Amino acid sequence: MEEIVLKDPLDMHLHLREGEMLKNIIEYTTSQFAGAVVMPNLTTPITTTELALQYGEEITSNSKHKTFKPFLTLYITDSINEEELKYAKNKGIKILKIYPKGATTNSENGLNEILTPHMLKICDIAENMGFILSIHGETNGFSMDREYQFGKIFAKLAQDFPKLKIVIEHMSDHRSIELLETYPNIYATLTLHHITMTLDDMLGGALNAHRFCKPILKTPKDRDMLLNLALNAHPKVSFGSDSAPHLEKNKLKDSAAAGIFSSPMILCALATLFEKHNKLENLQAFISNNAKKIYNINDLQPKEIRLCKKHSWVPTQIKLIQNNIIPFNAGALLEWTQVI
Amino acid sequence: MEEIVLKDPLDMHLHLREGEMLKNIIEYTTSQFAGAVVMPNLTTPITTTELALQYGEEITSNSKHKTFKPFLTLYITDSINEEELKYAKNKGIKILKIYPKGATTNSENGLNEILTPHMLKICDIAENMGFILSIHGETNGFSMDREYQFGKIFAKLAQDFPKLKIVIEHMSDHRSIELLETYPNIYATLTLHHITMTLDDMLGGALNAHRFCKPILKTPKDRDMLLNLALNAHPKVSFGSDSAPHLEKNKLKDSAAAGIFSSPMILCALATLFEKHNKLENLQAFISNNAKKIYNINDLQPKEIRLCKKHSWVPTQIKLIQNNIIPFNAGALLEWTQVI
Repeated sequence: MEEIVLKDPLDMHLHLREGEMLKNIIEYTTSQFAGAVVMPNLTTPITTTELALQYGEEITSNSKHKTFKPFLTLYITDSINEEELKYAKNKGIKILKIYPKGATTNSENGLNEILTPHMLKICDIAENMGFILSIHGETNGFSMDREYQFGKIFAKLAQDFPKLKIVIEHMSDHRSIELLETYPNIYATLTLHHITMTLDDMLGGALNAHRFCKPILKTPKDRDMLLNLALNAHPKVSFGSDSAPHLEKNKLKDSAAAGIFSSPMILCALATLFEKHNKLENLQAFISNNAKKIYNINDLQPKEIRLCKKHSWVPTQIKLIQNNIIPFNAGALLEWTQVI
Repeated sequence: MEEIVLKDPLDMHLHLREGEMLKNIIEYTTSQFAGAVVMPNLTTPITTTELALQYGEEITSNSKHKTFKPFLTLYITDSINEEELKYAKNKGIKILKIYPKGATTNSENGLNEILTPHMLKICDIAENMGFILSIHGETNGFSMDREYQFGKIFAKLAQDFPKLKIVIEHMSDHRSIELLETYPNIYATLTLHHITMTLDDMLGGALNAHRFCKPILKTPKDRDMLLNLALNAHPKVSFGSDSAPHLEKNKLKDSAAAGIFSSPMILCALATLFEKHNKLENLQAFISNNAKKIYNINDLQPKEIRLCKKHSWVPTQIKLIQNNIIPFNAGALLEWTQVI
């Protein structure tokens, strides 16, 4: 039977949550990935190195896959200072995460304004220390234009700090691609949902709250141009699922939560997608090699994931004790199966 | 206390549903309006004059307000013929309604294609008989562009049948305004939700399924330009709520229903809106006079609605036996109260 091997798959944007939720979902990632960039927007945001290290412990102690490497991130608030950055660096934290206040789940502690004198000073320090700056780049303008409007801030930071690597997280707007092409130090992560869906997949027919996410899904042109970046494994782009579990009851209520839980079977889904477009040969770069270069990752425990050409299905639901989680593309048929 | 009187308020686009739902919601409309154009997209669509007349009976027999006038509409399918149109005309039906297949709730029997030889023939007959052609004008393209893409069909029909009055129902896209300005026989209805909200009011923060409707809410520019038409009571525009009740459980589920139930307190809400923009003097034209001219309405039983300048609140929910309905702007404070 036809097989492919994916070496050291990396998910460069992941929400593992904490506590019971983490325990319930972590294996969906650790069974497929050698490592993942874990987002710091917990109920108590990870704004200090100490909290990050504790979180790293929680992740490692809860995973059966002991070689799994969580890349910890520090949630930047206005009170961040040089000393904290030094400590973080010293403890192996490589990524700083900026959320504009209110942009997404648990972003209430985010920044009201990005380009303040203090934050520019922090960026200067981060540049000198070799941090990577990971940004949820959205203004508080009209949803379909939020990422585009944020482009000016990406451009300003990229110009002012040319040695600071800046990542446009979950790029969703084709107008952001110009930033990638213009600024040598701007990179991006791409989710599976933004490269395969448009706003219409959420609300073009009946409303599908499970596909409600931030940044909001965009137009067919956005989807197609971002998919093209992924399929060609554009060297400045790496895979970041932005997988974000929410209980079903929190997706189907007044004021429902944003986030798509895409981790289950995601490597098989990506292989199915890349094969459909005759680009399977680029999946390795998209899923790992690009990220290793961009983030200078050289300390992974090697991991090989074997996929065979055999039908599999995304689970229709993940049953937790209290409630279910409905995964992305629940019940979908995939062309590949992970060999366990 | 300051009062205003609205004479013969008309809702030129309304979903009254049928059976138990109709019984539960009809008074929200009949207590405020002298008449309403009732949409024919019932579970069994009203595709014949007989069905329309039965529906008229159901409406009249279930309303305590016996002077309320339902303007019946005929749901156009590919099997409509001249004889049926003659019969409809003979029975006082003035409005034909076109749904593109799949455009909204209960539109499965709608037209796959609008500009077929048969439909053009029907339009020719309708023009000669003096029918008004009311259209849910959306293609099956990308949601945010569906109405704009449909514009070509409006233009073609308006040109080919210059004496046929054509109504762009629930106009949602500012690019449709050009059609109003260009073609003497194109008119529009405007909803309260499309002139006061954008897509962001549905999904800019958390997801609010109660604001999910078709056509989908659009951009701030669309909202503002349509609001401007309403506030100035543009003579080619009349008010049509497109109020469409759904049980709460059907709004908060997988594949949730499209539709906003805006009827409760809607005259007070419109007065509050028009007063806020110093355009209260135009409300009478928007809510009745324009419609009377456009639709040649001269057989109403006179109805005066008095509003006084006193706070009122939109109900937070409408309790039915089986489940609740959550109205538009549930719980909102209004500046006016209807004098009963």
